[in-house]
Amino acid sequence: MSDSPEQLADKLLAGDRRALARAITLIESSRPADRDAGNRLLERVTPAAGQALRLGISGVPGVGKSTFIEALGNHVIDRGHRVAVLAVDPSSALSGGSILGDKTRMDSLSRRVEAFIRPSPAGRTLGGVARHTRETMLLVEAAGFDLVIVETVGVGQSETAVAGMTDLFLLLLLPGGGDELQGIKRGIVELADLVVVNKADGELEAAAERAAADYRKALRFLHPRHPDWEVPVLSCSALEGRGIADVWAAIERYRDCMTANGELERARAAQARSWLWDEVAEDLLELLRADAGLRQHAAALEAEVVAGRSSPRVAAWRIVNEFLERQEQSG
Amino acid sequence: MSDSPEQLADKLLAGDRRALARAITLIESSRPADRDAGNRLLERVTPAAGQALRLGISGVPGVGKSTFIEALGNHVIDRGHRVAVLAVDPSSALSGGSILGDKTRMDSLSRRVEAFIRPSPAGRTLGGVARHTRETMLLVEAAGFDLVIVETVGVGQSETAVAGMTDLFLLLLLPGGGDELQGIKRGIVELADLVVVNKADGELEAAAERAAADYRKALRFLHPRHPDWEVPVLSCSALEGRGIADVWAAIERYRDCMTANGELERARAAQARSWLWDEVAEDLLELLRADAGLRQHAAALEAEVVAGRSSPRVAAWRIVNEFLERQEQSG
Repeated sequence: MSDSPEQLADKLLAGDRRALARAITLIESSRPADRDAGNRLLERVTPAAGQALRLGISGVPGVGKSTFIEALGNHVIDRGHRVAVLAVDPSSALSGGSILGDKTRMDSLSRRVEAFIRPSPAGRTLGGVARHTRETMLLVEAAGFDLVIVETVGVGQSETAVAGMTDLFLLLLLPGGGDELQGIKRGIVELADLVVVNKADGELEAAAERAAADYRKALRFLHPRHPDWEVPVLSCSALEGRGIADVWAAIERYRDCMTANGELERARAAQARSWLWDEVAEDLLELLRADAGLRQHAAALEAEVVAGRSSPRVAAWRIVNEFLERQEQSG
Repeated sequence: MSDSPEQLADKLLAGDRRALARAITLIESSRPADRDAGNRLLERVTPAAGQALRLGISGVPGVGKSTFIEALGNHVIDRGHRVAVLAVDPSSALSGGSILGDKTRMDSLSRRVEAFIRPSPAGRTLGGVARHTRETMLLVEAAGFDLVIVETVGVGQSETAVAGMTDLFLLLLLPGGGDELQGIKRGIVELADLVVVNKADGELEAAAERAAADYRKALRFLHPRHPDWEVPVLSCSALEGRGIADVWAAIERYRDCMTANGELERARAAQARSWLWDEVAEDLLELLRADAGLRQHAAALEAEVVAGRSSPRVAAWRIVNEFLERQEQSG
């Protein structure tokens, strides 16, 4: 890479798409040599970030996420916005490639110059993938995209991670039939600020509306997350292009409401602090795990804890003390 | 305290209740001088812990938690068990005393020698309170109590913390009226392994049964947490003593089911590991925050992050590097 991190940052800020892609690759790199360069790049672009609306979208495979994101993306671009689509998919490393952020599934959107689509970073852990995605979000915002969509397929704790890095969490559901509604993964429905029942196509339109009515009823069991916002349940057909305008109108209403009451800003500040201290804890743990001798000892202590022979408090104390002694010795 | 930690531990293991109370006070102490003594005590007793069933109970104020726990406690003691009741209530430090674990509200239970009731530890943070409660759980188990109840009043993330340290999470609800069911705090209903509608007293019995039926229907929206277990929704009147036997029978069924399929053991191992690494991260952060100069610098960096001028990744790196340099210098 011939550009310095600062030069790469300036190209990104000027709207150079290839520079943006290279910057993201640099940020996702786990090579120690790239770490410092990544830091310099981030420092240069971060002040230009933060102005976009951050939208998280979750839904099971088959709900039509790609079609929905494509329809929504095209709609907002037609209204003058620039849309980036990112993804959090920790399984991508195992499956040999993410099923999310797949440009071939969002063909018409991917060909628009006002859109930028990037697959999930590969990663061993959800924490690592989420970290890279949050940093990539800063990069695309600095590059001028004012709507950032982060999609997740609903595996494990991905939704909580995505909800923790976005302003609005949209849950996409399938229309069910009768009393037996599609099971919703535990813990997700109450993260949602907006629920959309997709695939209200043709004959399924009535079923989708019934499902939406049932979900509205179910949501009344839950205390509102924000006193100022009642979670709307909408239905749409992304395939046929119906209902998308209403979805965007609801998103804009949410943004306006949460900006007016200061909640958006408060939530962003809390997310930033939380992200900072997660990084601090993760950096410390990483250093601890990088020490081969200590890693072995820690594994042995962990086994003692799992077997019930030692308490976590005491085992943790031993691990940390050994780590500190080694730091002092290396100084 | 004239006993050494080891002597105190041995008295606790022999069934000395005053020793148990003193041991818990020692564990809850934040004085650095007590830390080492607490560690020695824990190491001595931990191998004797782990054999109890750990039951988390949550419910809003007014749902009748104390009456319910008293009725359940008396019922299981009559069947030959020994019951400890602990509490997680981070607000106790602010309100000048916990409303949970109040013996005066569980009078008949507190007078039984087979029961042990302890109010929530005071603490500035939920994390600190939860940590002490988990350690106290080890102590009461080592002292021979085979059912440990951890109650929480439903403030903030307390339920998640309690669900993360117990085998079974029981949600206690009030009977609602008609279509408008009592709002359930987001994120809690899907933690539940057992739901009980209380206050099915006298004329309210029919309303309680209708509420139970509605909650059963609502729970069908959610994917089961365990494939082998369908969450029962029962109704009872703790005041009148009706339905308590059915609740205990359901708890025993859950325990038998999750023991047979290995899930209890798996969950315990995961909780132990998670507890260990939480402690490691917390110890490291504590050391970092104990350094006054570093604390100031970290606050300044945090402000830069919240203002959007610096990225969390870079700010974290600076904080950690300064921490390590100071460690090397102090060696």
